Amino acid sequence: MNRNIDTFIGCDNEYDESKIVIFGAPFDSTTSFRPGTRFASKVMRSESFGIETYSPYQDKDLEDLEVFDGGDLELVFGNTPRVLNQIEEFTKRILDDGKIPGMIGGEHLVTLGAMRAVTKKYDNLHIIHFDAHADLRKDYLGEELSHATVMRRCYDLTGDQRIFQFGIRSGERSEFDWAKDHIFTNKFDFNGLEEVVQELQKVPVYLTIDLDVLDPSIFPGTGTPEAGGVNFLQLLDAIRLASKLNIVAFDVNELSPAYDHSGVSTAVACKILRELLLAIGIK
Amino acid sequence: MNRNIDTFIGCDNEYDESKIVIFGAPFDSTTSFRPGTRFASKVMRSESFGIETYSPYQDKDLEDLEVFDGGDLELVFGNTPRVLNQIEEFTKRILDDGKIPGMIGGEHLVTLGAMRAVTKKYDNLHIIHFDAHADLRKDYLGEELSHATVMRRCYDLTGDQRIFQFGIRSGERSEFDWAKDHIFTNKFDFNGLEEVVQELQKVPVYLTIDLDVLDPSIFPGTGTPEAGGVNFLQLLDAIRLASKLNIVAFDVNELSPAYDHSGVSTAVACKILRELLLAIGIK
Amino acid sequence: MNRNIDTFIGCDNEYDESKIVIFGAPFDSTTSFRPGTRFASKVMRSESFGIETYSPYQDKDLEDLEVFDGGDLELVFGNTPRVLNQIEEFTKRILDDGKIPGMIGGEHLVTLGAMRAVTKKYDNLHIIHFDAHADLRKDYLGEELSHATVMRRCYDLTGDQRIFQFGIRSGERSEFDWAKDHIFTNKFDFNGLEEVVQELQKVPVYLTIDLDVLDPSIFPGTGTPEAGGVNFLQLLDAIRLASKLNIVAFDVNELSPAYDHSGVSTAVACKILRELLLAIGIK
Amino acid sequence: MNRNIDTFIGCDNEYDESKIVIFGAPFDSTTSFRPGTRFASKVMRSESFGIETYSPYQDKDLEDLEVFDGGDLELVFGNTPRVLNQIEEFTKRILDDGKIPGMIGGEHLVTLGAMRAVTKKYDNLHIIHFDAHADLRKDYLGEELSHATVMRRCYDLTGDQRIFQFGIRSGERSEFDWAKDHIFTNKFDFNGLEEVVQELQKVPVYLTIDLDVLDPSIFPGTGTPEAGGVNFLQLLDAIRLASKLNIVAFDVNELSPAYDHSGVSTAVACKILRELLLAIGIK
Amino acid sequence: MNRNIDTFIGCDNEYDESKIVIFGAPFDSTTSFRPGTRFASKVMRSESFGIETYSPYQDKDLEDLEVFDGGDLELVFGNTPRVLNQIEEFTKRILDDGKIPGMIGGEHLVTLGAMRAVTKKYDNLHIIHFDAHADLRKDYLGEELSHATVMRRCYDLTGDQRIFQFGIRSGERSEFDWAKDHIFTNKFDFNGLEEVVQELQKVPVYLTIDLDVLDPSIFPGTGTPEAGGVNFLQLLDAIRLASKLNIVAFDVNELSPAYDHSGVSTAVACKILRELLLAIGIK
Amino acid sequence: MNRNIDTFIGCDNEYDESKIVIFGAPFDSTTSFRPGTRFASKVMRSESFGIETYSPYQDKDLEDLEVFDGGDLELVFGNTPRVLNQIEEFTKRILDDGKIPGMIGGEHLVTLGAMRAVTKKYDNLHIIHFDAHADLRKDYLGEELSHATVMRRCYDLTGDQRIFQFGIRSGERSEFDWAKDHIFTNKFDFNGLEEVVQELQKVPVYLTIDLDVLDPSIFPGTGTPEAGGVNFLQLLDAIRLASKLNIVAFDVNELSPAYDHSGVSTAVACKILRELLLAIGIK
Repeated sequence: MNRNIDTFIGCDNEYDESKIVIFGAPFDSTTSFRPGTRFASKVMRSESFGIETYSPYQDKDLEDLEVFDGGDLELVFGNTPRVLNQIEEFTKRILDDGKIPGMIGGEHLVTLGAMRAVTKKYDNLHIIHFDAHADLRKDYLGEELSHATVMRRCYDLTGDQRIFQFGIRSGERSEFDWAKDHIFTNKFDFNGLEEVVQELQKVPVYLTIDLDVLDPSIFPGTGTPEAGGVNFLQLLDAIRLASKLNIVAFDVNELSPAYDHSGVSTAVACKILRELLLAIGIK
Repeated sequence: MNRNIDTFIGCDNEYDESKIVIFGAPFDSTTSFRPGTRFASKVMRSESFGIETYSPYQDKDLEDLEVFDGGDLELVFGNTPRVLNQIEEFTKRILDDGKIPGMIGGEHLVTLGAMRAVTKKYDNLHIIHFDAHADLRKDYLGEELSHATVMRRCYDLTGDQRIFQFGIRSGERSEFDWAKDHIFTNKFDFNGLEEVVQELQKVPVYLTIDLDVLDPSIFPGTGTPEAGGVNFLQLLDAIRLASKLNIVAFDVNELSPAYDHSGVSTAVACKILRELLLAIGIK
Repeated sequence: MNRNIDTFIGCDNEYDESKIVIFGAPFDSTTSFRPGTRFASKVMRSESFGIETYSPYQDKDLEDLEVFDGGDLELVFGNTPRVLNQIEEFTKRILDDGKIPGMIGGEHLVTLGAMRAVTKKYDNLHIIHFDAHADLRKDYLGEELSHATVMRRCYDLTGDQRIFQFGIRSGERSEFDWAKDHIFTNKFDFNGLEEVVQELQKVPVYLTIDLDVLDPSIFPGTGTPEAGGVNFLQLLDAIRLASKLNIVAFDVNELSPAYDHSGVSTAVACKILRELLLAIGIK
Repeated sequence: MNRNIDTFIGCDNEYDESKIVIFGAPFDSTTSFRPGTRFASKVMRSESFGIETYSPYQDKDLEDLEVFDGGDLELVFGNTPRVLNQIEEFTKRILDDGKIPGMIGGEHLVTLGAMRAVTKKYDNLHIIHFDAHADLRKDYLGEELSHATVMRRCYDLTGDQRIFQFGIRSGERSEFDWAKDHIFTNKFDFNGLEEVVQELQKVPVYLTIDLDVLDPSIFPGTGTPEAGGVNFLQLLDAIRLASKLNIVAFDVNELSPAYDHSGVSTAVACKILRELLLAIGIK
Repeated sequence: MNRNIDTFIGCDNEYDESKIVIFGAPFDSTTSFRPGTRFASKVMRSESFGIETYSPYQDKDLEDLEVFDGGDLELVFGNTPRVLNQIEEFTKRILDDGKIPGMIGGEHLVTLGAMRAVTKKYDNLHIIHFDAHADLRKDYLGEELSHATVMRRCYDLTGDQRIFQFGIRSGERSEFDWAKDHIFTNKFDFNGLEEVVQELQKVPVYLTIDLDVLDPSIFPGTGTPEAGGVNFLQLLDAIRLASKLNIVAFDVNELSPAYDHSGVSTAVACKILRELLLAIGIK
Repeated sequence: MNRNIDTFIGCDNEYDESKIVIFGAPFDSTTSFRPGTRFASKVMRSESFGIETYSPYQDKDLEDLEVFDGGDLELVFGNTPRVLNQIEEFTKRILDDGKIPGMIGGEHLVTLGAMRAVTKKYDNLHIIHFDAHADLRKDYLGEELSHATVMRRCYDLTGDQRIFQFGIRSGERSEFDWAKDHIFTNKFDFNGLEEVVQELQKVPVYLTIDLDVLDPSIFPGTGTPEAGGVNFLQLLDAIRLASKLNIVAFDVNELSPAYDHSGVSTAVACKILRELLLAIGIK
């Protein structure tokens, strides 16, 4: 009799045969407003059986792709540096095995852990970043490791003109001012993404998606909902566009399931992950 | 002193004088993901008093239409064949009295019960079907009577090229493949509905609306929410368009009120029913 | 050691130096469907710290504007006339000090209290009114002071052709009929607002926003949600347009936070208030 | 075909044959903390079908008792004096027909309306009052008609030593002080009820139950929950004890269903009403 | 890299080495009031990591016991006879391997499936049954297979005087009447359990626990909550008492997690299962 | 016009005149199961206006006691050592001014910050600790600063036989084993508290109350609910008993309001704080 295996739908392949490895990073200790993203990966696995493996949008099926679901990392809440190390090590292992890591947050700071491993492997890494928030503060109440500073810390790894943000609609004035000289920030929507995709054809790319880029009407289950976001189909289009690039790693984060009793936010996150896997994994 | 009558707003007419008869079919036993549609009709009656009888969209008023609300059928949970018989018999009675039955589900399988009665009365019946899901599986885990097979079972009654689906955005690949040869499936929206309406001018039509055709942003209270749906005004337009046909029976289903604590889903369902009644009942 | 001051974000200035004074009017006794707007102002203060003081939409910052938050009035539930007097007196005091009052409801009837003070100070006052509901009944179950009659009572103060409604999508037929002769009612959206703004360049204007003008997908937390509303960006545009006028007083009302556990409705209301303050206060 | 009748379970008898007449008084306009009791009677009817007509506690069955459910009064929110008049008139009608009125609140102030009718019919009326709150303020923020003053207003009708309170565990010091000279107040539980029942054998009694006398662990769905209350079985015993008296009218109030998503509070209220009906109606 | 195994806490042993095998039976199709127990086993696995493996009540630890968690059966909603067969077969397999099956419902009807396997293996089987409801109807709306008839169907398997019920506080009068001649029904609590345990020392016993035997104050997350139940410590004592018998199979059922947003009901169910496993598995 | 002051009810005195100073420590970064206690102090201030200043249990009134509410500390989520320093410094300031600090958590780890200040001031400090969890782990996943280790860390400050725990009903076996030699651990309830109080008459005492010592039936709004707890009146008695000692500092923690939509948990926490203030402040 077999033990009870729990994976995201359609991601029940063997590790060795898999092209993509997804895993959960259940961490939300620096969240300043409403915590709860730690539950995202577990709930997404559970609820993913409410969707299908087949996408009528892309006419592709998860059954035609090898994905391994490595479960959740066991992270220590409250010790941020250590958590980032754990994420970096796990990501490195996947990269070393020649696979694409796909992390499910957790709060957005988890991206920094993965990014550290990815930048060590890939020179000239560029970042495509979908988000409602700029996340570009130098520090947050004096703290350098925070969900509100994560893209600034990623910038510390990549340097000027390597980060391309889309959908941004919240931040301090100083963040927007700083961005002008150092990264590409597109406010409100995905205008300009097409040009960026043409430009970055030859470089490795990390795609990080803070799901609060979506309008809270369709994605209320997140820590800091920001009205005026993109809709589901717009995000789908943007994902398919960005996936034409050489995506070497990706993450989706900031689902906080407990804030949406209807379960819609989780269902949306599951579909976004399915579409991401299909777009990146089956060309 | 009178007993306490409970009807949908504006539907408190005498049976004999009524053109349309609405009733609830509180059944959700085959729901595979999240049950709860059994409560829809009761809650809709209760909450309908939060809307008006007058529609500014159609400039019509329920006060100018005779509708009888027959309450809810007493259905036995767990015995699917018997439930379908009960629905068929009640629908037949309404049809025999020359009235238009309007059923409030319940899960979508209830449509099969009503359809059996309607196809027996009307030759050449065609079906217009608004839904997020194709519902075209041959069986579900070996079971032929299921919410996931209901349109396939309806197809068994009508035969090829009689079913016209709109808004479909979820299903197995095999469902979409099968559909190509047997029915008309329009993915994602209502494109093509206008042509269909022109084509079907002379035939009797059953209009079945799975409310999850709506985007879950506006209709989270349903068993299997699917992002990327139509919005309220698009559905309103589609209803008014379809109502130009000879609608001989109709249903709305898959509201699951407990999954939406805000009550918005129920309020939307109430308005859809009001608009349906006005569009079908007052020409 | 200082006491614990609780204000809306960025509204912690001195009274004497402030151009705008906001205050809460926590009253919902005449609400006929679902009460709870009494909690709006308190919750908005609390949750406002989840948004920023800077608006990327207007490129303005609350830190550059002097606003005083006067807290909540202590109103007596159940005694409507007395409550309206309390609101009128407080509004008068702000007006007498040459400041702009910005009231946070509460149900929409609170507007009548403020309006009484404003019409006494300003001759030729016009009203711009964003709402899903006409609120034009002569009485509601025989009662003249009701959320459902509030604009009719305001009309009693201003007379013909002084009220301009936008977004209206619910009401009795008789309300729409009456409106044709006495006020300007625009159904469903903000069409015509641009012309109205051009027309009213020289007159004092009261801007009253019933937040249920928003679609319930983005604003479910309200007493009587009405599908088919405007989206957040449309309301933002309308606010910026209307703010080109001489706004002498304004209010936002009908947030009922308990009906939206996700907190999105409150977050939206906070952003609307921020944008209102910036649009009216910084020209 | 019959219209859809909606009654509390087992209360579907003819008016003329009934000994007890229950009705809803959906009013909560003076509630100072959290409104919502207006929904109690409607939800109780709906949910009562989750319980049985038979009580294993009393070994009695509602099927052996004639009760008529008159539905809900249509009350005007916000106009307190008028609402009390409506309740008084309806109660009078039932009393005039020689029946026992059983009102379902609503906030506790509705008791005053019924009490006015009852005191006019019955000389020497005594009141047994189960509650967490003393409700004995002279006024509340200057207002004499309030849920917080209701027993003081009842006292104005009955005079000294006619009111017997049990379970009281919240109030201002001045309320407890006043009570010492004018009524019988038993704090925390039902100690002393047995003696009171012996004492009042020969007088007509009004039994008013504020359900928040129950501990909020079992009854969270109320406006002002007060820890330290009695449990379900204690209340059951007290009801059976009090029902040995000549109960000429009774009410249960302060269920606010929306504050308890589990539905347990409503289920408890339904059972309490069943037990009350059986205890009073079948001797 | 290992796949993601999901088990109840401390139940991650090999099948062959295990003394007890737990599994989920996610079925609720005959539930007449509020469905949702299908989610119980999955949620219990997930939330079990909020409790410890060690019980301070019994001073025993799950780490000292071999239990295998076989995951959930894949059951077809809506086809009751087939579901019962699936459960019977799986239970038989465990019994054939000489292990103790411990089923997690689902609605109470799942007990019938397991019982069929157990009665075939064990002559002279007796049943100890903790529940709020008698579940002794001959049929429910004409249907013999229902959660409301399950103990009557078990009686059909065992015959007279083999079933011992405790905690019963709801049912039709006819159920209580029938019980007097055929089984032992103890109303309200566990009085008499000690005597029963002494009496049944030498026979095989099936222990079935409908968790709604608990008071809804501590266990609101169930389909039909019944006030007046036992508390957690009383149930714990009863479990430890009953576990002195030769328990050859057991189940816990009727947790419906979605009705309790606090998660307390699930936490309680997890603890009950831990205590059951420890009491039955470690003597 | 005055700014909007927000304090716990009855705690609006001047700092200099106050005997007790309460403040919030909104921190929950090490919470391993369900975060959210960061919102406790803010919500308690808001909801405290639903209770009275007068306690019928103690016949005392907050109006007769000088308490200052210092608001919430601004703590950095994710940096545990720094947060503990902030708490220590603030506590020290209050102690230096000769007042009694009363902290509102937050997760239980905040106690360590306050304890560091208190142990520096008071030699021979003893701790009375009410909790469901032992919190005595040496480390948690290798981390020494955690809600699960907090009492072990306090032990590091005080040494053997200075900590007296009551109500403990969850922990690893090793915690209970360790406790036997080093502290006094009373399982399940308050047995033995009376003797402890007699014993500690002459020493300074820190009273720390993890509110999950209460049964989750009355206090579901906490991160890790543990059935089998004490009830409200038992906790009240224990508080009054412990308050006979020389309490030099105290805290209440682990309210997580979002997990209890009914608001009962918050109402209970408010009452516990009122009773604590009255018991400690008025002798």
